[in-house]
Amino acid sequence: METIKNMALIVQKFGGTSVANIECIRNVAKRVAAERAAGNKVAVVLSAMAGVTNQLDAWAREVSTLSHPEDMAEYDAVVSTGEQVTIGLLALTLRSMGIPARSWLSWQLPIRTDDMHMKARVSSIETKELLVSLEKGEVAIVPGFQGITESGRVTTLGRGGSDTSAVALAAALKADLCDIYTDVDGVYTSDPRIVKKARKLNKIGYEEMLEMASLGAKVLHTRSVEMAMKHNVRVQVRSTFSDNTGTFLVGEEEIMERRLITGITYSRSDAQVSLIKVENKPGIAAKIFGPLAEAEINVDMIVQSISPDGKVADITFTVAKTDLDKTLEALKISGLKYEKLFTASNIAKVSVIGVGMRSHAGLAQKMFATLADKGINIHAISTSEIKISVLIDEEYLELALRALHTAYGLDAGK
Amino acid sequence: METIKNMALIVQKFGGTSVANIECIRNVAKRVAAERAAGNKVAVVLSAMAGVTNQLDAWAREVSTLSHPEDMAEYDAVVSTGEQVTIGLLALTLRSMGIPARSWLSWQLPIRTDDMHMKARVSSIETKELLVSLEKGEVAIVPGFQGITESGRVTTLGRGGSDTSAVALAAALKADLCDIYTDVDGVYTSDPRIVKKARKLNKIGYEEMLEMASLGAKVLHTRSVEMAMKHNVRVQVRSTFSDNTGTFLVGEEEIMERRLITGITYSRSDAQVSLIKVENKPGIAAKIFGPLAEAEINVDMIVQSISPDGKVADITFTVAKTDLDKTLEALKISGLKYEKLFTASNIAKVSVIGVGMRSHAGLAQKMFATLADKGINIHAISTSEIKISVLIDEEYLELALRALHTAYGLDAGK
Repeated sequence: METIKNMALIVQKFGGTSVANIECIRNVAKRVAAERAAGNKVAVVLSAMAGVTNQLDAWAREVSTLSHPEDMAEYDAVVSTGEQVTIGLLALTLRSMGIPARSWLSWQLPIRTDDMHMKARVSSIETKELLVSLEKGEVAIVPGFQGITESGRVTTLGRGGSDTSAVALAAALKADLCDIYTDVDGVYTSDPRIVKKARKLNKIGYEEMLEMASLGAKVLHTRSVEMAMKHNVRVQVRSTFSDNTGTFLVGEEEIMERRLITGITYSRSDAQVSLIKVENKPGIAAKIFGPLAEAEINVDMIVQSISPDGKVADITFTVAKTDLDKTLEALKISGLKYEKLFTASNIAKVSVIGVGMRSHAGLAQKMFATLADKGINIHAISTSEIKISVLIDEEYLELALRALHTAYGLDAGK
Repeated sequence: METIKNMALIVQKFGGTSVANIECIRNVAKRVAAERAAGNKVAVVLSAMAGVTNQLDAWAREVSTLSHPEDMAEYDAVVSTGEQVTIGLLALTLRSMGIPARSWLSWQLPIRTDDMHMKARVSSIETKELLVSLEKGEVAIVPGFQGITESGRVTTLGRGGSDTSAVALAAALKADLCDIYTDVDGVYTSDPRIVKKARKLNKIGYEEMLEMASLGAKVLHTRSVEMAMKHNVRVQVRSTFSDNTGTFLVGEEEIMERRLITGITYSRSDAQVSLIKVENKPGIAAKIFGPLAEAEINVDMIVQSISPDGKVADITFTVAKTDLDKTLEALKISGLKYEKLFTASNIAKVSVIGVGMRSHAGLAQKMFATLADKGINIHAISTSEIKISVLIDEEYLELALRALHTAYGLDAGK
């Protein structure tokens, strides 16, 4: 018997708002059915109903500080249940439409992860039984956000982890496409709620998406992009609520029409810490950032300016707002000497992202000039190969985004 | 090292109203802590938060008729999640009180059942790891109501199945006691909401409890009583909300002060079907009840009266109200010939239960006389070794219960 070669294997992932209630689940079932009717094999990854994981999380935090690894293991057993509900309900819905379907709990496959509870990483997915099921024409439905450890405890992947589950499954199944259905219809050049002229991108490179994702374009979980890049998984971000083509995540080589700048993103989740007149001697950076690293606080932007005589320095850095208290505590313990300490939470980080940064020196200068032109003060700057970020006062955020979007020629209609 | 011999192993089971919210779960944690502080090893079996399983059940039924075994397997995966939430939350609560505790999902032990989804029976519980955990002084917390099949699919035991889980666990662990915590403080001689003079029983025999449970005293799931009897598990039914001693389920030999009659129960869940002038020939009962058995309809009371010439018979029987439509359908298909068919749903079954039935002939007669005295008509009678049940019009139910309770000398203060 000859196998039909042009049958594709597609992983479809639906987020919490897409399975928020029975009507939504019926809508998802129709999308799955359409993909299957088109002659494709379909594996589905689901989130919990919108709000359910939040409720489970809140209950767990009400009774526990979650400070011990064993607490985190119990937390994971609790918060992983929401997806088990939606996958079963979708299987039932598909079956009552006459479509063979089966839900697979993470321990039934299994989906293996490391044992870092609450932020586990997928290490492998056993696909043997899944492939048999898909070969029979069944829709295979898998819970997002979770897995089990080698010793058989339930783990979760951190909030937004279902995207990673979907990409990991697509990689394990060698799927032709991983469709991430969400409540937006793709990746935009900037946040369309602020920048009215933002355009939807048809394609975006993995690395650019990685910067976009980690900088606050909340369309995809960062780790899912890393995983897609690593395993070269073709991902499409698209809307559950329309039939429009979304944005494809692809290797750079696939993007024919090369843009210098891909998008402008922002984040309001950072706080600024400034230490004024720190004694400047060798090892001072280690004395500041060592204790922070030990307290598992991520430091993002760092700016150091040294006095003319070289004896004292001002140091500014950013941490997540949620880590601010912990940061001040760690600094206190460090015994560091300084004249003054400032903190600010009413700040925002704006980032310009694009592979053009690699080769075009003028692109950074355009950012500084544009902001200067609008009278916006820059508190700190950080750069990577394909990104420049600046820290500004939050009240200028919208103005900065729109001005940069225009300056880099990203406005719709251009 | 010498093992402390007088340390008991206790299984505590808490129902849905006992874990309805975080405050309730904290209360449960205190009860568990007290048992442990008293020097006992404690294994806990929990239901889902009150209302949760109903919600999950309703969602599943909204999208599926649950007519195929595969549907039922998906149903079980969905409705079994509620207990996974409560066991994790209780483990977290105990741990934050400084008490080592761990939740065990049914597949982690595993709890094995047959593959009759939605009404599975526990076949075995692997206790090796549990016993190690208990030996270390940890509280072991296990989900009620569920298990897995030999091939690793999730099953549920039917509504109320958590009692059975608890007794099965107590049997597997050879526990000294299985405390079933619920919202009533024990087993009463009759329903205290109707019969104000009902008394709480200190002890009740397994067989009597079996009749009480199956006839509508909804304190315990019938199967849990069967299992307790089979494995000789000492069970106490008691209230989560008070410290009073409850009712102990024990072997008959343990009940010193022998009562003739233990209690009066009732059920409103039956419907009556009467076939008038059925052609009376050999095999007619098989022709009626064969198709019903095939359709998995449980027939309870059966009364057949034959005309003087022996040619035709009237047949009355009862089925669960929920099975009435299915029953009429099955009768239609059977091609049975009769003159008329009556059905009635406004009926009730009243039962008098007690081991005294075995030896005291007059006890049945007392029931008939008492009801006749109140002018209550009996539509059907059925008996077992330790029970007599009669079918009466529902409107007389309260009157019948109170009259019988008094007639059999069960009233409080007697």
